[in-house]
Amino acid sequence: MSIEVDLIVHGAGQLLTLAGHGPCSGQAMSDLGIIADGAVAIAEGRIVATGTSAEIRSHYRASHTWDAAGRVVLPGFVDAHTHLVFAGSREDEFEHRIAGATYLEIMAAGGGIMSTVRATRAASLAQLIEEAQPRLARMLAHGTTTAEAKTGYGLTTADELKCLEAIHLLNSSQPVELVPTFLGAHALPEEYRDRAEAYIDLIVDEMLLAVCQKHYSLPGNGSPRALPFCDVFCDEGAFDLQQTERILKAAKALGMPLKVHADEFAHLGAARLAAKLGAVSADHLLRTPAEEIAAMATAGVIGVLLPGTPFGLGQHEYADARTMISAGLPVALGTDLNPGTCYCESMPLMMALACRFMKMTPAEAIVASTVNAAYAIGRGTDLGRLQPGFVADLLILAVDDYRHLAYRFGTNLVQTVIKRGNVVSTASST
Amino acid sequence: MSIEVDLIVHGAGQLLTLAGHGPCSGQAMSDLGIIADGAVAIAEGRIVATGTSAEIRSHYRASHTWDAAGRVVLPGFVDAHTHLVFAGSREDEFEHRIAGATYLEIMAAGGGIMSTVRATRAASLAQLIEEAQPRLARMLAHGTTTAEAKTGYGLTTADELKCLEAIHLLNSSQPVELVPTFLGAHALPEEYRDRAEAYIDLIVDEMLLAVCQKHYSLPGNGSPRALPFCDVFCDEGAFDLQQTERILKAAKALGMPLKVHADEFAHLGAARLAAKLGAVSADHLLRTPAEEIAAMATAGVIGVLLPGTPFGLGQHEYADARTMISAGLPVALGTDLNPGTCYCESMPLMMALACRFMKMTPAEAIVASTVNAAYAIGRGTDLGRLQPGFVADLLILAVDDYRHLAYRFGTNLVQTVIKRGNVVSTASST
Repeated sequence: MSIEVDLIVHGAGQLLTLAGHGPCSGQAMSDLGIIADGAVAIAEGRIVATGTSAEIRSHYRASHTWDAAGRVVLPGFVDAHTHLVFAGSREDEFEHRIAGATYLEIMAAGGGIMSTVRATRAASLAQLIEEAQPRLARMLAHGTTTAEAKTGYGLTTADELKCLEAIHLLNSSQPVELVPTFLGAHALPEEYRDRAEAYIDLIVDEMLLAVCQKHYSLPGNGSPRALPFCDVFCDEGAFDLQQTERILKAAKALGMPLKVHADEFAHLGAARLAAKLGAVSADHLLRTPAEEIAAMATAGVIGVLLPGTPFGLGQHEYADARTMISAGLPVALGTDLNPGTCYCESMPLMMALACRFMKMTPAEAIVASTVNAAYAIGRGTDLGRLQPGFVADLLILAVDDYRHLAYRFGTNLVQTVIKRGNVVSTASST
Repeated sequence: MSIEVDLIVHGAGQLLTLAGHGPCSGQAMSDLGIIADGAVAIAEGRIVATGTSAEIRSHYRASHTWDAAGRVVLPGFVDAHTHLVFAGSREDEFEHRIAGATYLEIMAAGGGIMSTVRATRAASLAQLIEEAQPRLARMLAHGTTTAEAKTGYGLTTADELKCLEAIHLLNSSQPVELVPTFLGAHALPEEYRDRAEAYIDLIVDEMLLAVCQKHYSLPGNGSPRALPFCDVFCDEGAFDLQQTERILKAAKALGMPLKVHADEFAHLGAARLAAKLGAVSADHLLRTPAEEIAAMATAGVIGVLLPGTPFGLGQHEYADARTMISAGLPVALGTDLNPGTCYCESMPLMMALACRFMKMTPAEAIVASTVNAAYAIGRGTDLGRLQPGFVADLLILAVDDYRHLAYRFGTNLVQTVIKRGNVVSTASST
């Protein structure tokens, strides 16, 4: 007696199940739960069972089957940190930076984050959606099936709500699932120059509530949904620790889960704050001291590392992943996709960077891009693993060994993308 | 009266003609010869004319037209340095290197270049061709329309000839045009350990002549063709300067054009030798002193820079492109595609690396990947520019500003590839 399912993917030379429970740290980041000649049975968009092809064949039947032909099958990537929604681009600033322009010179020339804020404010909702669509198509083609997406280039209540609405409408109009984050505290808008506290007041007294109300009033699937994350860019030139704490506490009081941009350029104590407030993740972590890493690990905060950013900036300093993994901190990866420092949609390139410059192994980079990235966006219990009950998001690679994902770089080894049990992207060998 | 041609590509927001003469150095590397709303008229696989869309429309007509829709159109990329033909892969060695294994430890574990030599010797001609095909498909999809391709994993006369034959057969069976290089002096084979001079004898007395004979006996298009390049890996752990000179002089006496791997790990004087012998290019150049750069510039040697290799190795030291460009040396780019240090087929990623870590501008990176790369493989008079008489190899990007090629990274912005006037690759927005 075999059970009827919707789809069986079989013949995986290496089926990376990453089966287990909870975020992975230490040695657990090296265990991919590989099944040779593996198969996955899928029904109603969820995984019913995994096993060898023979096992699955003997217990399940399906009208649709997909032969992985000896190649690698693994969970879809989760991109734990993106600034997906913005208007315009900053290739002129890139060219000036190569020529040696400083951050202040770029700002004086009208560049930097404020140029994206001006473009995003001037853009209609439809334009924001149109500009984000090819980025989402690239993410999907490179294997990202779920991504966090931040606001943060609006910086007025209306423009932040516009960006949040763009995220929701994009979420329902293409395959990449989006988890929204409110980042009103991304930068101090020009009209609040020298009046930072007034802008914090605006966030705390008006934006946070408006965001929560808007979030619930936006079209959804009918079931109650989690509030968006609240994130703050805590760094020199952005918001200080006290301002960060004030915003995050207000968000927490509303029930919003928390994230924080911590220690990208300067150490201000944001990682410790993340631990204290029970944030879901602290991101960047280039200058985080050992005791704050330990505090994060103890508090269950995920460390989201973004190696595309130093790379994008042409720098040579990366987060110290080995110390974090040794300290028991679950480490996740994200692209940090944004028009200033890292215009890259590819999680495989992040893995290639993580292995070369943060000395993560290919296995650790995969765990960081699936299981731990799912936990970093509050979705660890149904995304990032191939095990019964989890959403059937999976990838078939063009290669027969998972290590090729980081060993090779700059091209796309993802051949087929399955989202919620549906084949949503297939490529030729390129 | 309009002239009938085969194909007109029109509506290029930026048509990068790179029109001019000779290799580009200094300030000339910044001149892309951009025509706004540009068009190209193509007949019999060659460029007939370029101009504005209105100009081309008024003088030419064609049954096939292609609307570039405001996007960037530029010459196809020339990859000036690849080790395209090899069997197997070395992801295990990549993992060991991350964990801190030294080169000697990797060799002792059976890894390193000799593992690829063993696999390549064991492979049939058909297998070598089959394994190279997906690499060529990736190269083409990322805009490479012509590539140099080296032997060098055979290291016996028969196996080097097998690799050369693979290059010729691949050249005639898919769109990427291949320019062959004999690199019998890639490494000292195991059976010649401690007998380097005997291996040099084999190269000089047997291989070179066999390669030239084989080259002419292989199927071609009927017209006389240039001999393959002869290249030597001159470095610590490879061949010394005296051995290099002996091989290159013997090759030169046969009429072969010359290349040399110079100063990748140690400075042995190969760049000066390249200048002395009139080599077409010297490649890598990480440790080349200023006086040897000047000697190369004076002698007309092209400097081929390969930023994928330090990146692939996780290192932070790159060739000093700015000093070279200031010294009047024409600089070209290549991928160095190989299974050990740089398994990457993407010229756009090389541009992204060149701009970030060698401080080349996007314009210089484009000149280095077209005009100068064509000169580096002896094809500067008919490839790398969009001007009358040149081969009609061109790319249409997914973007409207050429600087996106380096500003963005890790995804493929090449949308359409035209080789000898035929559309050979088109992609969706990804």
